[in-house]
Amino acid sequence: MNGAKSLVETLLRSGVDTCFANPGTSEMHFVAALDQAAGMRCVLGLHETVVTGIADGYWRIARQPACTLLHCGPGLANGLANLHNARRARSGIVNLVGDQATYHRPLDAPLTADTEALARTVSAWVRTSAQAGALGRDAAAAVQAARTAPGQVATLIVPSDVSWNDGGVVADPLPVPHAAAVDGHAVESVARVLRSGAPALLLLAGAAAFDEAQGLAWRVAQASGARLMLDFVTPQVQRGRGRLPLDRVPYNTDHAIAALAPFEHIVLIGAKSPVGFFAYPGKPSSHIRPDAQVHVLSRPEQDPLAALRALADALGAPDAAPPDPGPRPEPGRGAPTPEGLARTVAALMPEHAIVSDESVSFGRGFYAHTHAAPPHDWLHLAGGAIGDGLPVATGAALAARGERRVISLQADGSAMYSLQALWTQARERLPCTTIILNNRRYAILVGEYQAVGATPGPTAMSMLDLGNPALGWLDLARGLGVEAARATTLEQCADLLAQSFRQSGPFLIELVI
Amino acid sequence: MNGAKSLVETLLRSGVDTCFANPGTSEMHFVAALDQAAGMRCVLGLHETVVTGIADGYWRIARQPACTLLHCGPGLANGLANLHNARRARSGIVNLVGDQATYHRPLDAPLTADTEALARTVSAWVRTSAQAGALGRDAAAAVQAARTAPGQVATLIVPSDVSWNDGGVVADPLPVPHAAAVDGHAVESVARVLRSGAPALLLLAGAAAFDEAQGLAWRVAQASGARLMLDFVTPQVQRGRGRLPLDRVPYNTDHAIAALAPFEHIVLIGAKSPVGFFAYPGKPSSHIRPDAQVHVLSRPEQDPLAALRALADALGAPDAAPPDPGPRPEPGRGAPTPEGLARTVAALMPEHAIVSDESVSFGRGFYAHTHAAPPHDWLHLAGGAIGDGLPVATGAALAARGERRVISLQADGSAMYSLQALWTQARERLPCTTIILNNRRYAILVGEYQAVGATPGPTAMSMLDLGNPALGWLDLARGLGVEAARATTLEQCADLLAQSFRQSGPFLIELVI
Repeated sequence: MNGAKSLVETLLRSGVDTCFANPGTSEMHFVAALDQAAGMRCVLGLHETVVTGIADGYWRIARQPACTLLHCGPGLANGLANLHNARRARSGIVNLVGDQATYHRPLDAPLTADTEALARTVSAWVRTSAQAGALGRDAAAAVQAARTAPGQVATLIVPSDVSWNDGGVVADPLPVPHAAAVDGHAVESVARVLRSGAPALLLLAGAAAFDEAQGLAWRVAQASGARLMLDFVTPQVQRGRGRLPLDRVPYNTDHAIAALAPFEHIVLIGAKSPVGFFAYPGKPSSHIRPDAQVHVLSRPEQDPLAALRALADALGAPDAAPPDPGPRPEPGRGAPTPEGLARTVAALMPEHAIVSDESVSFGRGFYAHTHAAPPHDWLHLAGGAIGDGLPVATGAALAARGERRVISLQADGSAMYSLQALWTQARERLPCTTIILNNRRYAILVGEYQAVGATPGPTAMSMLDLGNPALGWLDLARGLGVEAARATTLEQCADLLAQSFRQSGPFLIELVI
Repeated sequence: MNGAKSLVETLLRSGVDTCFANPGTSEMHFVAALDQAAGMRCVLGLHETVVTGIADGYWRIARQPACTLLHCGPGLANGLANLHNARRARSGIVNLVGDQATYHRPLDAPLTADTEALARTVSAWVRTSAQAGALGRDAAAAVQAARTAPGQVATLIVPSDVSWNDGGVVADPLPVPHAAAVDGHAVESVARVLRSGAPALLLLAGAAAFDEAQGLAWRVAQASGARLMLDFVTPQVQRGRGRLPLDRVPYNTDHAIAALAPFEHIVLIGAKSPVGFFAYPGKPSSHIRPDAQVHVLSRPEQDPLAALRALADALGAPDAAPPDPGPRPEPGRGAPTPEGLARTVAALMPEHAIVSDESVSFGRGFYAHTHAAPPHDWLHLAGGAIGDGLPVATGAALAARGERRVISLQADGSAMYSLQALWTQARERLPCTTIILNNRRYAILVGEYQAVGATPGPTAMSMLDLGNPALGWLDLARGLGVEAARATTLEQCADLLAQSFRQSGPFLIELVI
């Protein structure tokens, strides 16, 4: 058995049965091995940023790592931005990077690059496999690393001769470490703070934004008077009827500081203490009150359910039904507004839909108008590197095996970073509905421009303008095999949404805003 | 004056007057400074791989560095693959990477990444500017590094507070180091070898592939009986009538070994000793005869003209007119073939056209049929990271200030890596004609598959297939603002080429092959 076959067999034995790929010469033996080992689903992306973003979306819904297949250092480099996002989202991914043969690398052939250095910038675990006989156990270790709580990016670099040489040995799965134990002192300390009645915020992120943790957090809040909020960079929130109407800490520095100003105590549950996405002249980097005390109830690698359960028990908090979010919204009417679009989506989305939100500037107000929608998952860009929305949607749809509708709320400028994902949606006939929020500019930067105190002149404005020439979204979608239509009103948008939900494949709506 | 203004003014004073940009929040003060300093041309790209590829193409034609403007580590990461190509092409580029404020970086905000580590993988020179007062002289040093022979990638990381703080000082240009001197001993040694009459090859790359160096190399060849060849990875060749009908060392290992087998001596002039792009099982990594002797006449950082002149003088080589390449070809007819397309392009291209060749598998035979075309520059992918063809064409057209027609011979799979470049061509109304060689697959990998000895099964073949769904190239081009038409015969292709050459803006021809 060659190394490549032992790699594929080990992955399957470790429960990794899905591969997102853009292979090259150095991966040919791995690709060949896919046909010799039944059970590995392989999905092609036309650019590595699509491949890695799909892997991120896949993890978020499957809670199982997939592997990527990337070609040499530059192929990995193309996928780094969405691996950065995956790292910030704490998604588990096994990257397989084919590379120059061990004996060929010193010759510095054109595609040779410092693959390990590139990998280390985004990975919790990096290894270059040294020989075919070690590749199986290296793969098992990579899967173990990817599964380590809360989820990690692991990168295994596979020189081509390690793939093609004989001597491959299939390895057994390695045990996944238990999540770090709950810190009893932290629970007691937080319980004491909450009992004091001083204004306190429980800040949720990671798995603390999921259904069951929300229920526990709500018990704590009801028993103690503490407030609940989501970290702005929470990658995934389970929302809608039966869940809590949680808001995120605002993106805008002034708004974030105002939102956090009431709280003397900030209790972190899988979250980090809120800081600005960026610094701005004359404004603080930290968004909490200077005199606020920060308490860590649960770190990201700990189990937030256990911590919240311990806290609820310590407080003697009784069961509490989630608040009634009110009636499901009616669709919006007339010209597209953020609120109207949010209401339209909330009114029409099927049960257990998945929303991939890279709406950037237009979407800041979507939450308030979608609390009363049916239960759904809402996915966010966690690392700030634009271009994850369409790939994450694609990966989420693949993880849901076609059984859940995925709705992308997608800014136009960001969509242009990874529009090739639409082709994979068409190829795999995925139930993905994309709403392109076409404002013909990098609208966020117009706001950022003002926030940093700079004065935009004509050159500056032209750098923020996407309207010359206007991007033809219907043409682009069709060119990638995806049916598409334009909406200029919310009524048209609602009709197209409803139409797309009746279809099995992807659909794109260009919403002119 | 703030740091950003001192940066722009220093760049202008150092002769860097062109900026390719995809900015974000951390670059807003730089963008603002562009409006306060006349003379900096700023061109927007919709993805950083477009931005960096444009900078590579710009250098190749202008022989002057431009700057890029990139947003934080992930923005740089998106541009790394084409910076890898630029590094291999030895192109001079000044990357400006805006980043988190110095005091904000320790807080590990979401977009924070190891920007320096990313930069080092592709750059000969990396610096993070520490304060506004140093930014001017840091910029001058970056330009100096980019201009250092034969051309280098220099990356200056600019924290946002270094941009916005006062205290900026405009710096004078720093002197560019002279190219390393000719090695007289190497000249003598090579002259002795050539006089011996043993079979010898002069292998040219870099500036040795340019017009004047070719003339000197031809004198040497005529006087000594040595043969001439271009390194496969030569980024730019000046070709056509009046230049030499040089061939490149073949890509295919067997063909390369056969082509190099006659030579007991390999004389490198800006080239590296030929090795495989990849290793293949049971085949040698080095493509020269095991008993061949390698002689370095001129390293890439040396002046090949001086070295060749010294060698010609040492041999007493008289002037020699270049060989007559024969009559200009007639356009091809009927179904598209590599030879027919090459003849069609050679028959129709305007004088001093620029060919950006990312034809990959289809284009291996283009050279033989284009020697008798009018004088032109032919640009190649030097680093093997696909996706440089369209951006390099765009940058070349910008460097030529609209005065030269640029023809992209572009494989379909590679085009999908950076198709956003078409939008910049439309926005800047560049005279770029793109021929998409649409074979609906990663054709090169079918060949590579066989070369590594792997057996393709259905999963493997599906990973090489771009036909499901078929990419709609006319739709994609129009969506990006570029007029487009399809050709299924060489006659149609010739008509469309001629039509596009009469227009001032970009045009795309989908050639179904």
